[in-house]
Amino acid sequence: MAAVVLVQGASRGLGLEFCKHILSKKSEAVIIATCRNPEKALQLKDLGVRYPEKVTILKVDVTRENEIKQASEIVKSKFGKIDLLINSSAMLHPSGKGETSLRDVSSEGLVATLTTNTVGPLVMAKHFSPLLMKGSGAFGQQTADESKHHSGILVNMTAKVGSIGDNRLGGWYSYRMSKAALNMATRNLSFELGRGRPKVVCVSLHPGTVDTDLSRPYHKNVPKDKLFTTERSVQYLMNLIDNLSVDKTGKCFAWDGSEVPW
Amino acid sequence: MAAVVLVQGASRGLGLEFCKHILSKKSEAVIIATCRNPEKALQLKDLGVRYPEKVTILKVDVTRENEIKQASEIVKSKFGKIDLLINSSAMLHPSGKGETSLRDVSSEGLVATLTTNTVGPLVMAKHFSPLLMKGSGAFGQQTADESKHHSGILVNMTAKVGSIGDNRLGGWYSYRMSKAALNMATRNLSFELGRGRPKVVCVSLHPGTVDTDLSRPYHKNVPKDKLFTTERSVQYLMNLIDNLSVDKTGKCFAWDGSEVPW
Repeated sequence: MAAVVLVQGASRGLGLEFCKHILSKKSEAVIIATCRNPEKALQLKDLGVRYPEKVTILKVDVTRENEIKQASEIVKSKFGKIDLLINSSAMLHPSGKGETSLRDVSSEGLVATLTTNTVGPLVMAKHFSPLLMKGSGAFGQQTADESKHHSGILVNMTAKVGSIGDNRLGGWYSYRMSKAALNMATRNLSFELGRGRPKVVCVSLHPGTVDTDLSRPYHKNVPKDKLFTTERSVQYLMNLIDNLSVDKTGKCFAWDGSEVPW
Repeated sequence: MAAVVLVQGASRGLGLEFCKHILSKKSEAVIIATCRNPEKALQLKDLGVRYPEKVTILKVDVTRENEIKQASEIVKSKFGKIDLLINSSAMLHPSGKGETSLRDVSSEGLVATLTTNTVGPLVMAKHFSPLLMKGSGAFGQQTADESKHHSGILVNMTAKVGSIGDNRLGGWYSYRMSKAALNMATRNLSFELGRGRPKVVCVSLHPGTVDTDLSRPYHKNVPKDKLFTTERSVQYLMNLIDNLSVDKTGKCFAWDGSEVPW
């Protein structure tokens, strides 16, 4: 059976680029692309038209557990498994601007950002991990030791600013806190889904500084060779994913393969 | 003027014990004790009767930013400053039980835990940091270098299970994630409140394994000498607080003074 990839947050940015990349480079794979509002996801709909046999678009607002659950039931009956799940959607803050100081912090902004960036990916993992455990191990590298083979890979897209130890600047309270908590979720998942057999490899990945809607307002001082297109970032990230194995589970890696401290 | 301490989550557990300890050991200090429901906080009300000149009890539900803001206005007009703020309240999970597996994870449980344990303390910091900046530096140790003197100390009560790097077991998703995110908040606060003058020292503290309502169901396998009464834990923690200075800001310490990894 074909390799099955689920990309959550596929309407734009890195999520959309993951879909494009996999469709063009992984001819054996089919994609389930989820987003909040498929009707408005024009580029994703285009992909669906160009690859009608390979792309399934599902409406999922990750802040609504019932939508996630329903989508998991559809995927279960249609595909029966997932080989790779990428949690990609995120917001900087409901205002579109990261907090520069406590003045900008609000209970509402924090809760909204944590719900989308942290709760959403974990609830996705809850409902889709049974399908990842039925995966064929189509992505990553299987270890020589057969008892450590993995069935699926779960990727939570994080960011280096979500590293507590690497934080030397402050600001962006909601976003930083949401990604630190997401990294904890990744680590917890690696234990729960790595204990028995089959195993699911769980990692957080930092895409580098990428030119997306989320981060574009902040790129003035980024040197050009450090500012990635989504294409370039996804090339790096897929290369990383292609080299994942159970030995690397429960960690956070940057685009260049270096480990990001918690 | 007297030293002013604000203990958030003062109706029971460590918060209540901090109040008792400070009232008996720090005769120069007055206490503002906040909790969700003062009417039901019988032990705290008793303290208020025993020390009527020294204890001010305020109703604050940390999930409601307007209550926090109102309390900060009362404290401002009555005391004009705070020397020590301790964010103590926390929940393990709305069910009272930490999640042992993804089956127990729910969007609602995650959001409720993050709102109380993570959003609440940061929104407290937002509204009370101006008063901490007016503190007299009555707690901790001032450095020899006068430019690094601090006016106040902000303590976020965290837990070792909130350390991502130390996590070797998984489980307790909501609680672990909320404390990891709170540690990020502590670190962010240390930059924002440590940049100018006066400075506020911001730390996360791990109280050890303490016999409180939150953790009592999990103590079966804890050796007796590792299970602290609230009295013993608060003795350790106040000793730590008495030795804090700006050099220690932005870190997480355990009851014995050792640094907890992120």
